[in-house]
Amino acid sequence: MPLILHKYGGSSVADSGRIKNVARRIAKAKDAGNQIVVVVSAMGNTTDDLVRLAYEISEFPDDRELDVLLSTGEVVSSTLLAMSLGSLGHKAVSLNGAQAGIRTDSSYSRARILNVDTERISCELEKGNIVIVAGFQGVTQEMDTTTLGRGGSDTTAVAIAAALKAGECQIYTDVEGVYTADPRLVPNAVKLEKISYEEMLELASYGFRVIHPRAVELGELYDVPILVASSFSERSGTVIVKEASMEVRNKVRGIAHDTNVAKITVIGIPDHPGIAMNIFEPLTRANISVDTIVQNASIEGITDLTFTVARSELVKAMSIVEPVAKSIGARECSASSSLATVSIVGTGMENTPGYAARMFRALYEVNINIQLITTSEIRITCIINEDKVGDAVRALHKMFDLDVT
Amino acid sequence: MPLILHKYGGSSVADSGRIKNVARRIAKAKDAGNQIVVVVSAMGNTTDDLVRLAYEISEFPDDRELDVLLSTGEVVSSTLLAMSLGSLGHKAVSLNGAQAGIRTDSSYSRARILNVDTERISCELEKGNIVIVAGFQGVTQEMDTTTLGRGGSDTTAVAIAAALKAGECQIYTDVEGVYTADPRLVPNAVKLEKISYEEMLELASYGFRVIHPRAVELGELYDVPILVASSFSERSGTVIVKEASMEVRNKVRGIAHDTNVAKITVIGIPDHPGIAMNIFEPLTRANISVDTIVQNASIEGITDLTFTVARSELVKAMSIVEPVAKSIGARECSASSSLATVSIVGTGMENTPGYAARMFRALYEVNINIQLITTSEIRITCIINEDKVGDAVRALHKMFDLDVT
Repeated sequence: MPLILHKYGGSSVADSGRIKNVARRIAKAKDAGNQIVVVVSAMGNTTDDLVRLAYEISEFPDDRELDVLLSTGEVVSSTLLAMSLGSLGHKAVSLNGAQAGIRTDSSYSRARILNVDTERISCELEKGNIVIVAGFQGVTQEMDTTTLGRGGSDTTAVAIAAALKAGECQIYTDVEGVYTADPRLVPNAVKLEKISYEEMLELASYGFRVIHPRAVELGELYDVPILVASSFSERSGTVIVKEASMEVRNKVRGIAHDTNVAKITVIGIPDHPGIAMNIFEPLTRANISVDTIVQNASIEGITDLTFTVARSELVKAMSIVEPVAKSIGARECSASSSLATVSIVGTGMENTPGYAARMFRALYEVNINIQLITTSEIRITCIINEDKVGDAVRALHKMFDLDVT
Repeated sequence: MPLILHKYGGSSVADSGRIKNVARRIAKAKDAGNQIVVVVSAMGNTTDDLVRLAYEISEFPDDRELDVLLSTGEVVSSTLLAMSLGSLGHKAVSLNGAQAGIRTDSSYSRARILNVDTERISCELEKGNIVIVAGFQGVTQEMDTTTLGRGGSDTTAVAIAAALKAGECQIYTDVEGVYTADPRLVPNAVKLEKISYEEMLELASYGFRVIHPRAVELGELYDVPILVASSFSERSGTVIVKEASMEVRNKVRGIAHDTNVAKITVIGIPDHPGIAMNIFEPLTRANISVDTIVQNASIEGITDLTFTVARSELVKAMSIVEPVAKSIGARECSASSSLATVSIVGTGMENTPGYAARMFRALYEVNINIQLITTSEIRITCIINEDKVGDAVRALHKMFDLDVT
C-alpha cells in the first residue's frame, strides 16, 4: 500500500472547523488506498500565546522549559485531529515527538534531528491506524523534549517521509503552491507545476514563505519529492523535485522578495585584520543572523562595512554593534530599516551571462535605486527601498518573461 | 536533607502572578534547607477549556486522545513554574508524568497508578534541582499518556511522597485547612489542627472538597502525613495523620454537606432476585456512580428501590433506568434533584450509641424532614431538601459542641 505523508500548518488547523476539514481530506486520501502519516503544527497563534505566557513569567525563560512548554501546542492539535478522524470512523492515533522517534541533539529551541526511529510509527501503520505526529518537536537521548526552531514542522514532515521512504511529502498550507512571484504583488503570477530543490531553496531563503529552506535541504539530501499545496482547495500544487523539467531550464523561475530587512553600516573603520571578527562574533553570540555583508575597498587605510539583519532584530543588533564600533575606532554607525530584497532565481542562470544586466536594467527603468547586491550561482539579490518592492517585483516578472504562461 | 512534597491546585496557579507567588513559596521552603518536589495542576480552567475543545471536534472523543490532550494542561503549568523558579535564581526542572515515572494501567481518563519509578526524580534532586512534576497524568507500559481522573493531582502528590518516603505531603489549595464545617455556612466553624485518615476520608467523600478521598486513602496506605493548607496565606493548615490526638476522640469531628445530589426512585417492582443487578449494571457500564441505595421491605411481593446519583448525572441516569424499570415490570420511576446530604463524622462515634438520636433530634428541632439515612462506622448521613442544608449544618455543628473551641 503506498505511504503518503501530509503536513498541515497552523492556519490549516486554526480552529475546530478547520481541523474537521483537514480530517476529511486525510480520510479521503486514506480511502483512496494509502497508508497515511500526518504531521501537524500548533493551532493558529498557539505558539505565540505560549511564548507570551513564558515571558510574563520570566524575562529569560529557561531554554529547556520553554521547549517543553511550546511542544504542548502541537500535542493539542495532533490529538484533536486524531479525534476528528475517529469521529469520521477512521482509526487514528496521535504521537508526540518522543513517541514518533524524532531523536535530536540537545540544542534547545533549535534542535537538529539526529535520526528518526520509525518503529512505533510503523507498528501503528500496520495496525491500520492513520498516524498523527506532533510536529516541531523531538526528544534527546535523556528523553527531554526539544523543539526544532523555525520551520520545525516542515522539517519533521520531510524527515519522517525520508525515514519511512514515503512516496511523497505533501505540505498543505494556506497558499496553492509556488508562484513565479507573490500573487498579491503580481496578479498574473503563474503557479509552477515543478521546481528543483536548489531553486526552491533560494526562493525560500529569500522570501517565499511556503516552505522552510531547512525542509527543502533535507528533501534534497534524501531525495523526497515535496508537494506544496493548499489545504483549503482541491487544486494541484507545486512539486519540488531533483530537477525541474528540461524545457524550463535556462530561465528565471521566480522572483522572490522579502521586506523583513534592515541594514547597518559602520563608517570610517581603520582597516586592520580582525575587523569583521570583532563585529560579527558578538552578533553570533546574541543569536542574530547576518545576511548580506559588503566591505568597501579600503581608501587610505579607512573602510566601511555594511550588512543586513532581520528588521525585527535591528534594535538588538545596533545595541551590540555600536559599542564594538567605538572600540575599534570607527567614526560612526548608521542604521536603515525600511529596506527590502528582490531576488531572481533559476538554475538556468548558472554559467549564463546577461541576467544581472537585465535585472539592473529592469530596476533602472522603474527608477529604483539599488543599495546592495549579492549573488549565488542561481540567484541575484538587490537590496532596495521597501516602498519600491511592488514595482520592482512586477518589473522583474515582466523582464524575465514570467508574465507569459 | 529533609525531602518535602508540595502540591498546588489549579486556582493557586491560575495566572502568571499566582505562579510567581507559588514560586516564591517554594523558594522559601528550599532556602530553609529542604529538597523539594512539587506537583502542580493545570492553570485555572485549562482542563475544562480543553474538554470543551475536544467536544467541539467530536461527540465521542477517543479516550486515549482525550487523555493526551488533557495532560498538556499540567505540562504547561509545570514548565511555567520551573521558569519562575529559574528567574528567582533557583535550579528547577519540570517533568511530565512519563519522565516522573508515574506508571499506570491503561484505563484512560481514570488510570490507576501501578508504581512510581523515582529514578529520574532522585537524579534531578541530587543535582540540586527543585523538581516540578505535572500532576494528574501517568504513562502505560507502552509509553502512552494516561490521566488519573478526579483527584488526579492530589493522588500524584501522595504517590510520589510515598515512593520517595517524603517527610510530608503538603497540599496547597484555596482554603486554609479542614474545618469542623464549611465556614461559608457556619461562621464559627473551627479549623482542625489534626484529623485522622479515616475521618478525612469520610468527610472528603461526603462533601469536603479540600482533598480527594483517593489521595487520603493512598496516604493512609503508605502512612504519608498530609498537610492541607492555603497557598494564599502563611497560616498553618490541617495535618492528616494516622490518629488524631487522644483528647478529641469520642467526639464528632466535622459536619460535611454536599449539594450535588439527586435521587431516583423505582416504584412498584415485582420482587424477584436480580432486580438490583438489572438496574445497576447498566449504570455502571455508563460510568455513573451510585451512592446511597435503599430497598424497602417487600410488601405482597412488591418493593421500591431508591438510590442517589450526582445531580449532574441525573438526566443520563434516568435515560438508562426508565427503560430497565419498564422491562422488569416496575410501576414507575420518579426523580428528585434538589437534594443535599449532611453528614456527621468522627472516630469517636464508633461503638458509641446516641449519635444518631442526637443527629435526628437536631434536624427535627429546625423542622427538617429526613428522606434517606445511611451510615458507616464513623459517619451518619441524612439526605434532606437542598434549601435546608444551611440550617441543618448549623444545627448539627451546635448539637455536637463544635461551636465551642
